[in-house]
Amino acid sequence: MAATSTLRIALAQTDPTVGDLDGNARQVLDWTAKAAEAGARLVAFGEMQLTGYPVEDLVFRESFVAASRARVDALAVELAEAGLGETVVVTGYVDADGPARMDADSDPDRGPRDALAVIHRGRVVTRYFKHHLPNYGVFDEDRYFVSGDVLQVVRIDGIDVAFTICEDIWQAGGPFAVARGAGVGLVVNINASPYERNKDDRRAALVKRRAAEADATVAFVNIVGGQDELVFDGDSLIVDAAGTVLTRGPQFAEHLLVHDLTLPVAGAKPAAETDAGPPEMTVAHTVVTTETLPAPAETADGGIAEPLSDLAEVWHALVTGLRDYVRKNGFRTVVFGLSGGIDSALVAALSADAIGPENVYAVSMPSRYSSEHSRDDAADLAKRTGINYLSEPIASIMDAYLGQITLDGLALENVQPRIRGLILMGLSNQHGHLVLAPGNKTEYATGYSTLYGDTVGGYAPIKDVMKLMIFALANWRNEEAARRGETMPIPVNTIVKPPSAELREDQQDTDSLPPYEILDPIVEGYVDGDLGRAGLIAAGHDAALVDRVIKLIDRAEYKRRQTAPGPKISVKNFGRDRRLPITNRWVEKA
Amino acid sequence: MAATSTLRIALAQTDPTVGDLDGNARQVLDWTAKAAEAGARLVAFGEMQLTGYPVEDLVFRESFVAASRARVDALAVELAEAGLGETVVVTGYVDADGPARMDADSDPDRGPRDALAVIHRGRVVTRYFKHHLPNYGVFDEDRYFVSGDVLQVVRIDGIDVAFTICEDIWQAGGPFAVARGAGVGLVVNINASPYERNKDDRRAALVKRRAAEADATVAFVNIVGGQDELVFDGDSLIVDAAGTVLTRGPQFAEHLLVHDLTLPVAGAKPAAETDAGPPEMTVAHTVVTTETLPAPAETADGGIAEPLSDLAEVWHALVTGLRDYVRKNGFRTVVFGLSGGIDSALVAALSADAIGPENVYAVSMPSRYSSEHSRDDAADLAKRTGINYLSEPIASIMDAYLGQITLDGLALENVQPRIRGLILMGLSNQHGHLVLAPGNKTEYATGYSTLYGDTVGGYAPIKDVMKLMIFALANWRNEEAARRGETMPIPVNTIVKPPSAELREDQQDTDSLPPYEILDPIVEGYVDGDLGRAGLIAAGHDAALVDRVIKLIDRAEYKRRQTAPGPKISVKNFGRDRRLPITNRWVEKA
Repeated sequence: MAATSTLRIALAQTDPTVGDLDGNARQVLDWTAKAAEAGARLVAFGEMQLTGYPVEDLVFRESFVAASRARVDALAVELAEAGLGETVVVTGYVDADGPARMDADSDPDRGPRDALAVIHRGRVVTRYFKHHLPNYGVFDEDRYFVSGDVLQVVRIDGIDVAFTICEDIWQAGGPFAVARGAGVGLVVNINASPYERNKDDRRAALVKRRAAEADATVAFVNIVGGQDELVFDGDSLIVDAAGTVLTRGPQFAEHLLVHDLTLPVAGAKPAAETDAGPPEMTVAHTVVTTETLPAPAETADGGIAEPLSDLAEVWHALVTGLRDYVRKNGFRTVVFGLSGGIDSALVAALSADAIGPENVYAVSMPSRYSSEHSRDDAADLAKRTGINYLSEPIASIMDAYLGQITLDGLALENVQPRIRGLILMGLSNQHGHLVLAPGNKTEYATGYSTLYGDTVGGYAPIKDVMKLMIFALANWRNEEAARRGETMPIPVNTIVKPPSAELREDQQDTDSLPPYEILDPIVEGYVDGDLGRAGLIAAGHDAALVDRVIKLIDRAEYKRRQTAPGPKISVKNFGRDRRLPITNRWVEKA
Repeated sequence: MAATSTLRIALAQTDPTVGDLDGNARQVLDWTAKAAEAGARLVAFGEMQLTGYPVEDLVFRESFVAASRARVDALAVELAEAGLGETVVVTGYVDADGPARMDADSDPDRGPRDALAVIHRGRVVTRYFKHHLPNYGVFDEDRYFVSGDVLQVVRIDGIDVAFTICEDIWQAGGPFAVARGAGVGLVVNINASPYERNKDDRRAALVKRRAAEADATVAFVNIVGGQDELVFDGDSLIVDAAGTVLTRGPQFAEHLLVHDLTLPVAGAKPAAETDAGPPEMTVAHTVVTTETLPAPAETADGGIAEPLSDLAEVWHALVTGLRDYVRKNGFRTVVFGLSGGIDSALVAALSADAIGPENVYAVSMPSRYSSEHSRDDAADLAKRTGINYLSEPIASIMDAYLGQITLDGLALENVQPRIRGLILMGLSNQHGHLVLAPGNKTEYATGYSTLYGDTVGGYAPIKDVMKLMIFALANWRNEEAARRGETMPIPVNTIVKPPSAELREDQQDTDSLPPYEILDPIVEGYVDGDLGRAGLIAAGHDAALVDRVIKLIDRAEYKRRQTAPGPKISVKNFGRDRRLPITNRWVEKA
């Protein structure tokens, strides 16, 4: 027996859709065909590839779980029928050995499982159930799943391969420690790992740590694409036991990463201590093929994708989130108000990149307070990007409304964005466009928006982007266009003029809010960092300003709950991963 | 030493507000004074009395947790200063011995605690940390808290008393089993236990089971009041070891339940096996007072409150939820559209009961499709209930809008409710009223409503009430008025006429929806019961109708996410305890 065998592995970065069992299974068939054509012996798909991620309360529907279980068995047969039975296919799905936990009486040891199937020659040869279930941030897995405690080791071409799922890789002394004890040559870790700014560096460091712990090569595969507020960024990679990154896939793109791994065969590694893992965890073995393979004449090398810059990464995350929300919800076109300001300009440029300018409808809705330059900037942007441009002045509707109801002050200012919302919803209902809400994170945080006005929309593409980053992204996108020799999409005047809501004469954002250079870091500290008053002041912020901003943010909680989903790019957005009571009297005292 | 001692216990059913540490502590002071005046030796408050429940992501703010810890210590001093130091006070609050779990790196054994403090003579003599953390339905406690594993037994007047929190009482073989091993005479269980239809009977049965398991008397105390979507119903009770209900408090009312318990003193009970509880759980003992007390000449008996009928219970839950949402969010008045239909009529009657008719503003907003009888019924209701009544016809605004934008079909129908929403928000912004959204659960479920139209509002009082129950409640409230010799609030014509949205000529709900007698049970099975297609058909529903209703409900997910909170009365409402992906392609096949 040779001491090593060469395994050609393929990591499939696909974009599944929650609930689309047949479409997701079709992806497995299509990408396995590509992998087989490339000579891969093993192809790994992401966590819950068959069901999409996250399935949330669909887990409570027994018929859904039954459909997932049946689909993976049918997929095994379909793969064999397509002549792909010899390729070992690894895919995530939902399994169950009991009903979901609905109340205090449920069995804590049985229930739905975040599962992985290893498929070979027309059948599922083994199933692994995720051990570590994350229950923080965007994750609610303790709510939905029961933890597994058997590590599955499968012999493929003489190499022992262990299988793990997502969070398993975050835990020292977990399944990777057990894998070391089992002397495996490779650990495959399948993921639905959402994008978060700067997370990618943590990810490589993490895979290296676990490769060292397992004393084995680790292959990390992740899905791509948007699912409601989550954006998955791909970035699959393989790291050897010494911590060298062997290959790495691109971010935010579907991709098949094919790479040859020459690995120690079963029994070739020195024995390791076996008691480092969780005490409840045992190891089960399955043999698929034992014959070792030599290194081929022509080596497959997946290469190492160039990492994106910080701003490029955010841009791609926003485009991906928007594109998939539109597509996966059955829309083709979007509509939004184009004011000439920076926020709606950025939404226009993002939309054009995401679904093509011909599918984008921008509506100028000037009132008596709209400046001439705003209208010019809006028209200029439409020309530069090639999006569809309409004009619907709101004066006559305003007059009729104010003829019926007498309002002043803020109540009067709010009428304008609400009439604009009414126009956008009319166009949406009539023509089938998805309405986009152009609010940014700083606005949403501080409540600087009109409920049922500019918050109207089915999707908020820049909901998790602070105002300063809006400017940075606009500049980045223009520079990117210049680099490519294309027209810069966003008019320079839109970027350089002082921000204004234009709801009364000579209004500027700074009438109501501190300058964004000061405001954004306070919002970030309070929302993303959960810093309290003392923590913010210790970070160097002015105490009176901190009190003012905290009050604005606390008061806006209800308004934020009434807003559309938007792509998550930061530690905490205002969606699933931040939950505060609306009714709350707690204000930190000076 | 006598074999028994008599303990006069007081259970304080209070209505705390999340975050109002000082106000909630003030309740403890005030109610302890009442309890002491009534001669009580021990007074028990609800779970998280000091912080309110649920605190959700406030737990992630370290300054909040620190404030809660400091507040309980300050409260101990304040009680002593008020001359209440001899009364043993038991209250819930949030404690912590480590930072909250924010990511994969957090310590699983330390963090925030769902805690109980026993206060005596100016200090906290012991603290108990909740053992069983529910993480289903409306509960996310695994997300926020770390489980405790020490049962606290405190000797009070010679009696050993064990302390537990809420979910601890739902688990066999948990802290109550450990309490049996410790030979205690009494187990106090403090709760924030939300109302759910018909749950009260389960509650008494449960307390009886645990009393048998602990072989001890069990005192169950619960808070009352509304907190966002949750409504707490009080219903505190004491059950002896034989399963007899000794005393029971009222539902939905603040109340001090004072009762004398003659209990075995420490050591008087035969020894029990000590290994029946969770293996990780240990027992700690604290002595407060050892001297036993004889039964007093005048016995305190809390009595047994008459249970409410099913409909009375729901009515009180809705009134409580509405009243507290208005009050706790700093509003005094409410406004909503009064159409003459049953839903807004019920909202009007509820509002008048909750905050007084003088604080209720109902707006008739007729269009050309509004019938004469609708306007008459609305005016009649306003007269019957004494609420404020305004009329704001929408024709002129409609005309201006349709002069600007050309719409037909559903897009045109939606304009009317949206203009009404615009009027209500104008009145709200100008006068400070909270807007109420009058949609019912059947409408929300099936999407039979206009986004940013009739869904506009800060609170939806009947969001979790199916249409058939709307009728039943209207009749019940009228009959209740008749019983009391008062004017029936809801015009009979409003109840008996066929429901219509009146958005086009001669429209009726049954043009778009199956009759409510057929629809409501399907909605209930699909939403509350998580029955799939096969389950619904097996329950006797028509297959084609099931497919149609499932499609409606699945499609309405996004619209529901954009709606106001409302009081929860059923197994699953559309708030915190139901989480489905918006983007979801799964449709169960025939």
